[in-house]
Amino acid sequence: MKKPLHLIKIGGNIIDNPLALSSFLVDFAKIDGYKILVHGGGKSATALAEQMGIPQQMVAGRRITDAETLKLITMVYGGLINKNVVAQLAACGVQTVGLSGADANTVLSVQRPRQPIDFGLVGDIKAVDATAVFKLLEAGFTPVFCALTHDGNGQLLNTNADTMAACIAAAMSRIFACSLYYCFEKKGVLEDVNNENSVISTLTPQLYEQLKAQHRIFEGMIPKLDNAFNTLKNGVEEVVVIRAEDILKRVFNKENYGTRIVGE
Amino acid sequence: MKKPLHLIKIGGNIIDNPLALSSFLVDFAKIDGYKILVHGGGKSATALAEQMGIPQQMVAGRRITDAETLKLITMVYGGLINKNVVAQLAACGVQTVGLSGADANTVLSVQRPRQPIDFGLVGDIKAVDATAVFKLLEAGFTPVFCALTHDGNGQLLNTNADTMAACIAAAMSRIFACSLYYCFEKKGVLEDVNNENSVISTLTPQLYEQLKAQHRIFEGMIPKLDNAFNTLKNGVEEVVVIRAEDILKRVFNKENYGTRIVGE
Repeated sequence: MKKPLHLIKIGGNIIDNPLALSSFLVDFAKIDGYKILVHGGGKSATALAEQMGIPQQMVAGRRITDAETLKLITMVYGGLINKNVVAQLAACGVQTVGLSGADANTVLSVQRPRQPIDFGLVGDIKAVDATAVFKLLEAGFTPVFCALTHDGNGQLLNTNADTMAACIAAAMSRIFACSLYYCFEKKGVLEDVNNENSVISTLTPQLYEQLKAQHRIFEGMIPKLDNAFNTLKNGVEEVVVIRAEDILKRVFNKENYGTRIVGE
Repeated sequence: MKKPLHLIKIGGNIIDNPLALSSFLVDFAKIDGYKILVHGGGKSATALAEQMGIPQQMVAGRRITDAETLKLITMVYGGLINKNVVAQLAACGVQTVGLSGADANTVLSVQRPRQPIDFGLVGDIKAVDATAVFKLLEAGFTPVFCALTHDGNGQLLNTNADTMAACIAAAMSRIFACSLYYCFEKKGVLEDVNNENSVISTLTPQLYEQLKAQHRIFEGMIPKLDNAFNTLKNGVEEVVVIRAEDILKRVFNKENYGTRIVGE
């Protein structure tokens, strides 16, 4: 039987709130066994861009990553956020290694085609080296990934953190019984976006299609949920969308917190 | 018999020159067996401070690390430089892990006493976890350290890269026959600072004292050499000060490149 692995992705809203982040990291430290953390970027990259006078261009709600923006993101995601998360987890007794996809050659990507939109130095994931990640886990280390990958020729590439978490989870499923948790500030996928208590406990593909058709799924959730359903097709045991502060309750008690995404 | 370990520190002048850096990394990739890289910071942190409007205060030639400066250093050393070095080494086929002292809890430090000069968030190294570094090496990874450490309570601290290299080398000497190389832009320790061909091939403590008394040792070399002599007392097999581009010749052929520092 495969051993369990908990892969947790925390979003920008947690990263941007120092108290919420610390509290989450204390909880993360309490999770037993094999675990991996993937963190998003938050707003600090945008704030730094302003401070440095680097204009940011958004197309269809997405950041165009030119060379200057990539530098900035490498500094903020790979340096500031990643090393602070690593230091905080060390204080909680977790021996982590902060990684980009270039570290240990874990996540290889290819620059996104320049058509129809040229997003610049953005990477689409091509391969995850599950063996390298496994070696780190087996040696007793907890990987903490920022959402940067590389093309194998020395070029770092900006990558979507949700996709990165999904791809790592899928690859690790060859070795582990992998649960993927998308942690954010809401209690789960809501049936009514204005009602925090309308959490859908189980989301099937049928219900998802129905809610999308009725425009009842919040816009920003769609790529996350598409990722989640795809991940289930790739061997991940379960995908849960959950409020960061409920993560321990879910992991320890399998209580009815958050939204469980189920496949066909 | 202990296995050999090559620990190489590259200074800011190499980091600041993209061609020199790439060329060095290609050479570093060719070194067989166990190896560790420690990199300095270079001038990019100062340039970024200017761009961000963060005033930098120097006392006795050293940077005062206030909270804003630490953020900046974490971004530049831990993010920009470290992740680019890691990506370039990956392109050369080296499976590296980019680390701060907080990663894998490898290098613990204590904030420097505020008397006589308050340097701010600067760490003096207290302990290196040789076992953690060994586990990474044994798993097939090459550690690439930036000069950031942590206090074990979640606080990152700015640390001198030469000292970091010396402390890691001393700790690893319990397990390995460790050679420490300080790579920079000159051919070695020069007897005459204006003559590149006046390299001292072997520097003994007696010769060092004599040259210092005659003010013939370049000011910036003194902390590096003090470190080197201390390191020899702590079990490191050899310390070599050498031009970055000569590293392979030295490692492969033990030819007469650079300055070999020898103990009592």
